[in-house]
Amino acid sequence: MKDEAITLNHGAGGRQMHQFINNVILKELSNGILERLDDSAVIKNSKHGRLAMTTDSYVVSPLFFPGGDIGRLAVSGTINDLTTSGAIPLGLSLAFILEDGVKLEVLERIVHSIAIAAKEANVKIITGDTKVVEQGKGDKIFINTCAIGSIPDHINLSSYNATDGDIVMITGAIGNHEITLMKERELFDFDTTVTSDAAPLNIQVQSILENFPKLNVVKDPTRGGVASALNEIVDHSNCSIILQEQALPIDPEVANISELLGLDPLYMANEGKFIIIGPAEMHDHVREFFPDAVTIGKVKKDKKAVLLLETKFGGLRRVGMLETTQLPRIC
Amino acid sequence: MKDEAITLNHGAGGRQMHQFINNVILKELSNGILERLDDSAVIKNSKHGRLAMTTDSYVVSPLFFPGGDIGRLAVSGTINDLTTSGAIPLGLSLAFILEDGVKLEVLERIVHSIAIAAKEANVKIITGDTKVVEQGKGDKIFINTCAIGSIPDHINLSSYNATDGDIVMITGAIGNHEITLMKERELFDFDTTVTSDAAPLNIQVQSILENFPKLNVVKDPTRGGVASALNEIVDHSNCSIILQEQALPIDPEVANISELLGLDPLYMANEGKFIIIGPAEMHDHVREFFPDAVTIGKVKKDKKAVLLLETKFGGLRRVGMLETTQLPRIC
Repeated sequence: MKDEAITLNHGAGGRQMHQFINNVILKELSNGILERLDDSAVIKNSKHGRLAMTTDSYVVSPLFFPGGDIGRLAVSGTINDLTTSGAIPLGLSLAFILEDGVKLEVLERIVHSIAIAAKEANVKIITGDTKVVEQGKGDKIFINTCAIGSIPDHINLSSYNATDGDIVMITGAIGNHEITLMKERELFDFDTTVTSDAAPLNIQVQSILENFPKLNVVKDPTRGGVASALNEIVDHSNCSIILQEQALPIDPEVANISELLGLDPLYMANEGKFIIIGPAEMHDHVREFFPDAVTIGKVKKDKKAVLLLETKFGGLRRVGMLETTQLPRIC
Repeated sequence: MKDEAITLNHGAGGRQMHQFINNVILKELSNGILERLDDSAVIKNSKHGRLAMTTDSYVVSPLFFPGGDIGRLAVSGTINDLTTSGAIPLGLSLAFILEDGVKLEVLERIVHSIAIAAKEANVKIITGDTKVVEQGKGDKIFINTCAIGSIPDHINLSSYNATDGDIVMITGAIGNHEITLMKERELFDFDTTVTSDAAPLNIQVQSILENFPKLNVVKDPTRGGVASALNEIVDHSNCSIILQEQALPIDPEVANISELLGLDPLYMANEGKFIIIGPAEMHDHVREFFPDAVTIGKVKKDKKAVLLLETKFGGLRRVGMLETTQLPRIC
């Protein structure tokens, strides 16, 4: 026990990360809020109403990739996590851990990309920090961002709120971010035009909520992909979800490469997609702001609380959490 | 210009860090709040009143040292930064960047230390994140924390508020944290019993403010020490500060070691001290909750806006910002 060590799997968004969080973090730090393990924490305060807060560190490698870079990711990922609570951003923090020797020009490009993404999300970077470590003690640039936001009174989004009869939508094709990073790392050598989907999506979700506030769950399927995100929802909401394999939107190139490599897009990270769960009437409201959104499954009251996939051939198979890393450092 | 690179000095809290922040960060991200460069950002919002937010990453080496560890530092440093705005904490985030192979036992000790420090500060860890990087791409454990808090209506603290006639107090002896880390890194080999002062001090400051709300500046002299913190205040408040060398509280061991090494405690990092600036009537209120606090100088209206030191021999010399790193990775 004493010699147990952290491995890359502890950061992969799968079962080992969840065990680590339970056994090491929550054991010491449980306090009524943290152990909900929602993507955003919600603070209820008589003076301030409901505030949401969320944080993520970004260690993606390489720093730049088709469709984005670590800076765009650091804004998008954290703003999207905040959006899972229905909060409207009040501010974003930005902290760098730089490796001695990283070129200023590289940093300038990344800061520029952060500025563009923050503008898209209509959020201000309000505070920050810079630390520098010696060569060989870091990897060029790590970024942490933290977002706070205000939850409108009539909104009640949480991974605990999936309800019997709800439909499950995804706002677009899955797997593109992870395939893009695999290509950049030369893990396969077929040509591909796939690019990362990294984008902040808070404005679209706010627009949907203004028209249709009764969404139940909004969740971004990042590390561990759609399968891990839905397993968390199933676990938190204590219900089952049945996915239709045929309905899953997967770009042909992503589907082909996944098949050739024997990988499942359901477990691949996305950085610009939301799973949205709510009553069937939400469908057109979601499509108004996410034209590529499709219904991929439904929620069923069921004490077993499992994620099931109805395959193209009519079979039903259980889809578990990610066990080990498909690919480390994808965000 | 293209080949310019980040060095350890860019993270040292001195002039190079300030230039980097101005030329790279603010050039892209100015927005009316960030460029104030206060230790905490303040958001004014009709619905929520005034909220404060601050973030810091911790890369201290070694992870454990007499008087503290990276976990205690990660709570204390960020809560103390939040306290410089007068805010009462609403929540703290906690994000780890771990190096593959770090022992679980080490992490458990640090999480335990975080739990203790959070209890001292009466703050809850409400959200978090864990990333893991490959061996040689990190250095065991980096931590980022971000705090949000609520500023009571009648409080108005800022590094911009130092006023002619104010007294300048420090809540205790300076230099202990940096000397402790120098000893741990074997940068000198005399014996010493000096330990780090790392501690969250928000409860004491809140208590003072309840009795005497008219403090003007509360600032923690961390990286770059008292001299750099006061230079920032002088610059922001557009006034001069005259320090009395004789009044500076320095433990004899710290004084001796500094003299032997030719280092100035005024530039040494502290992790459990506050500079407090306000009207002379604050003196006894500050001493009630910080019994070791002493007056070390006063504020003078003066367009030159410089920090001056009246030496033990009656001379007056200018004290500038830290130019280069005294010691990297002290927090």
